[in-house]
Amino acid sequence: MRALIISADNFEDSELLVPYYRLQEEGAVVDVASMKPGSIKGKHGYEVKVTKLLKDVTAGDYDILILPGGKAPEAVRKEKKALDLARSFFEKNKPVAAICHGGQTLISAGLVKDRRVTCYKSVVPEMKEAGALYEDADVVVDNNLISSRQPADLPAFMREIMKKLKFKKT
Amino acid sequence: MRALIISADNFEDSELLVPYYRLQEEGAVVDVASMKPGSIKGKHGYEVKVTKLLKDVTAGDYDILILPGGKAPEAVRKEKKALDLARSFFEKNKPVAAICHGGQTLISAGLVKDRRVTCYKSVVPEMKEAGALYEDADVVVDNNLISSRQPADLPAFMREIMKKLKFKKT
Repeated sequence: MRALIISADNFEDSELLVPYYRLQEEGAVVDVASMKPGSIKGKHGYEVKVTKLLKDVTAGDYDILILPGGKAPEAVRKEKKALDLARSFFEKNKPVAAICHGGQTLISAGLVKDRRVTCYKSVVPEMKEAGALYEDADVVVDNNLISSRQPADLPAFMREIMKKLKFKKT
Repeated sequence: MRALIISADNFEDSELLVPYYRLQEEGAVVDVASMKPGSIKGKHGYEVKVTKLLKDVTAGDYDILILPGGKAPEAVRKEKKALDLARSFFEKNKPVAAICHGGQTLISAGLVKDRRVTCYKSVVPEMKEAGALYEDADVVVDNNLISSRQPADLPAFMREIMKKLKFKKT
């Protein structure tokens, strides 16, 4: 099982680290992709090694895409490659999990229209404007799309992610 | 299933948050106990609500004790109540999981002698002096005692914690 996290500097630390460690606990190989080599630094100061340059990522190599929040999505959503990758996961009906501001990348990729989704409260207006069916819940699962609002939702977010991956294994 | 985390200000954020969220993912009730009411703040600025005052904790209410690292254990190890609680978990052969500096509390409680254990590198000298059989590994399991060195070991640490709890359920 291979997981792809796309992020950048100023990510929300727990929203990246919790899935990163949880998927490794399960034996997954987790790549962290970003625009520059080296490492990315979270809002709270955690540094995470970039294992893959965004430009070199092939969607077909991964079983799930995870989009953490923080300020990172503001940068990620401007990258055509990130949007193309997200679209590719959706086309193949592979799980995409976005938390907090992570959904901004999906908005820019035009992937939320008529989809049930949640996100951080400050993102709600643009989420609705993009045609999403917004719900205020700790986690919302709409087919391949898993979304949560904030760090406190991480238990529900990870529970649904792991269900989706276990389902894929069978 | 009920889990008890004992910590204080200046905890290592990921070492508290990862088990905290992971156990909730599994449906556990997780109490965070500390010396003062309100919340405790990690080295990286995360605040976690104190759900139980240390003085009010009864070991019998919990299935596992988790001791995160950071600078918090320096304060926790001075609390007689914390040491008594740790001893109580050991007497009942209930799982105790310590990461990084978390093992310092077990040293002060006199619980590591002749036990296989790992810890953060700076804690190694006092761990050995206390009679522990130190090993340099991502996780060491010696009967009820699970220990890890640092945040990067969290996947292995959580894997062994979850095995222990699943084992208890059967």
